[in-house]
Amino acid sequence: MTTRRPTIAKFTRREFEDRAERARRLMTGARLDGLLLTSESNLEYLSGFTTQFAWNSPTRPWYFLLPRVGPPLAVIPEIGESNWRATSWVANIQTWPSPRPKNEGLDLLRGAIGKMRRRYGRIGFELGPETRIGMPVADLLRLRRTIRRFTMVDGASVMRELRLVKSPAEVARIRQICQIVSDSFDALPGMVQPGDSERDVVGKFQADILLRGAEKTPYTAIGSGRGGYHSIIMGPTDRKLREGDVFLIDTGSRLGGYFCDFNRNIAIGPPTDAVKRAQDTLTLATDAGIRAIRPGNRASDLFAAQARVLEEAGYTIGNVGRFGHGLGKVMTEPPSNRADDPTELVPGMVLTIEPSLRFGRGKILVHEENAVVTETGCRLLSRRAPRAMPIIRF
Amino acid sequence: MTTRRPTIAKFTRREFEDRAERARRLMTGARLDGLLLTSESNLEYLSGFTTQFAWNSPTRPWYFLLPRVGPPLAVIPEIGESNWRATSWVANIQTWPSPRPKNEGLDLLRGAIGKMRRRYGRIGFELGPETRIGMPVADLLRLRRTIRRFTMVDGASVMRELRLVKSPAEVARIRQICQIVSDSFDALPGMVQPGDSERDVVGKFQADILLRGAEKTPYTAIGSGRGGYHSIIMGPTDRKLREGDVFLIDTGSRLGGYFCDFNRNIAIGPPTDAVKRAQDTLTLATDAGIRAIRPGNRASDLFAAQARVLEEAGYTIGNVGRFGHGLGKVMTEPPSNRADDPTELVPGMVLTIEPSLRFGRGKILVHEENAVVTETGCRLLSRRAPRAMPIIRF
Repeated sequence: MTTRRPTIAKFTRREFEDRAERARRLMTGARLDGLLLTSESNLEYLSGFTTQFAWNSPTRPWYFLLPRVGPPLAVIPEIGESNWRATSWVANIQTWPSPRPKNEGLDLLRGAIGKMRRRYGRIGFELGPETRIGMPVADLLRLRRTIRRFTMVDGASVMRELRLVKSPAEVARIRQICQIVSDSFDALPGMVQPGDSERDVVGKFQADILLRGAEKTPYTAIGSGRGGYHSIIMGPTDRKLREGDVFLIDTGSRLGGYFCDFNRNIAIGPPTDAVKRAQDTLTLATDAGIRAIRPGNRASDLFAAQARVLEEAGYTIGNVGRFGHGLGKVMTEPPSNRADDPTELVPGMVLTIEPSLRFGRGKILVHEENAVVTETGCRLLSRRAPRAMPIIRF
Repeated sequence: MTTRRPTIAKFTRREFEDRAERARRLMTGARLDGLLLTSESNLEYLSGFTTQFAWNSPTRPWYFLLPRVGPPLAVIPEIGESNWRATSWVANIQTWPSPRPKNEGLDLLRGAIGKMRRRYGRIGFELGPETRIGMPVADLLRLRRTIRRFTMVDGASVMRELRLVKSPAEVARIRQICQIVSDSFDALPGMVQPGDSERDVVGKFQADILLRGAEKTPYTAIGSGRGGYHSIIMGPTDRKLREGDVFLIDTGSRLGGYFCDFNRNIAIGPPTDAVKRAQDTLTLATDAGIRAIRPGNRASDLFAAQARVLEEAGYTIGNVGRFGHGLGKVMTEPPSNRADDPTELVPGMVLTIEPSLRFGRGKILVHEENAVVTETGCRLLSRRAPRAMPIIRF
């Protein structure tokens, strides 16, 4: 295996200017004078600032302010200035010597907000569904009390809308990590040795993904059991894999700040008839889900298409709550492929198709692929799994 | 290299009961009737619930409620029930079918809080310094409006105090990941090939760490440059390593939910006199920092001991803002080794010693080791770096 990383095409300055421009149009629509961003995905999406540090060390918060009118501004700890300048298109930076527990950049933020042009009197913060704010809540509430010309409102809906449709450059990155992980999945059967535990297999699989060029593999779950597994989001545990097992590995791995999210199922020795029938049905449900991806359809149609196949085959739907979701800078993004999600599909949206079913005694089988919506349908980003479950022979 | 994972000793039920008992004593002291936890480190610390999923998929929040009196309770999405039961000592669970954007568990939480015994009328949430709440802020504010018998106050100070001193079982895990990463650092010079970029080297190094048994390597930064580097928290970039370079790799890698956090410096070809002098001084500053770790000293003494060596040698202190910090379930925890941090050292605290200095034209050199406070001083958890900078010869 090569140890040279694949090249990642840089995002152009134009890419970021387009994102900021679209953000501002959405802000006008939402009557926001500014957006204050603190979470990895939103801050990186608009500023380009790339770091591992800020998201692993909660001591210091990092702020990005995008006014509807006027230049964007980074308010960041002094330690991050050279990292910011090397990765972001935004040259306008204010820093403070952090850690400084009594005032972690709040005075700078207040000053910057105080100079913003006021039209609506509203600033969007990351408050709404599926967000995690990247600053202490106590500081957020303190800031809210002191920015008297502006009200703190939700900006998550603007960010959701902004990030829902991916640019060609974003899709290329997602495709790149999907292809790397497809290669690792192809190699996976050869990594599993008799006596290996779930932890052993996941360790080798994660290392393989990194050696092929992924930057991180934040999520690599495994489920295993005789004739099938019971959880799709667990592990790895110390359980040893044995003849007669079926196991799943599901990974959200990352390249250039973008995720893949798909799994594969593997049998050790010939699978039972129950497993084979479940696998066949899931494959058909996946086909149906992929066929349903086209502009004009809704997330709910993707759910319905997959559910129909499972129900016609007599299976109970699992406890996952949806049959896939959006994918991008976060492993799970809106929309949800649920019966009640009306999100309309448009070209450039990246989605997972992820049917799951229950069988046997509390067992579950899941299958997932990643695709981008095109003008006429979709293009798979993951390399479609073989229709029959691969078999390892110990 | 072996591909078998090292054994991780399980935390006993007693370990968790002790943590809950200590938490309740601190809650009484802080006049809290309950703690509501949502972040990975706090929730896992008290409940034992171990998952990669919850922290990579922000669609569904996960809640753990520890009343001062009465049994603890998990309020979690249905998808996580088997994972919870397999990893947590807490059997008391309520689930809801998630995603359900209009009400992600809030009604269950409200009901559970409504049944809590009220003495102080206060519930601690993760609001204060160095915390990141694991739920949407809009939901937090909504919950606050509906729990009328209780006030939402900060619980972060209780969690800080609770997690500051590590149990022997926790120290054992931190030592284990420190030793794994020490082995990888020893092997690092042999991984670097002519023509390698920063990304190539970090990819191989991360894979090595995983193959030796770490579960994740969330943070692996690299800085490189001719005669020294300019940032200690950046990279990897596509820059190729060359003869005459000095580079740093710093990693926060994880085992059993605990981090190491230390770096190593390596020269490609003989280092310059300026680098050698900086390295010698940093080594002496590290010695001084380690010698200052003993019960009764304060975090500020650790800063002073390191700063004295650097200042006497005529160096300017860098922009890091401290010379080390706490270490545990998060890569950087309180306290900060700063001139103004009065935290008193007690046995069981795990700390980093991390002097950094500026030299040449905007260059910085940093060195870091990890140690636990003992009754009489400290015990190193990382394997101390060689005093002279290792040299790779292309």
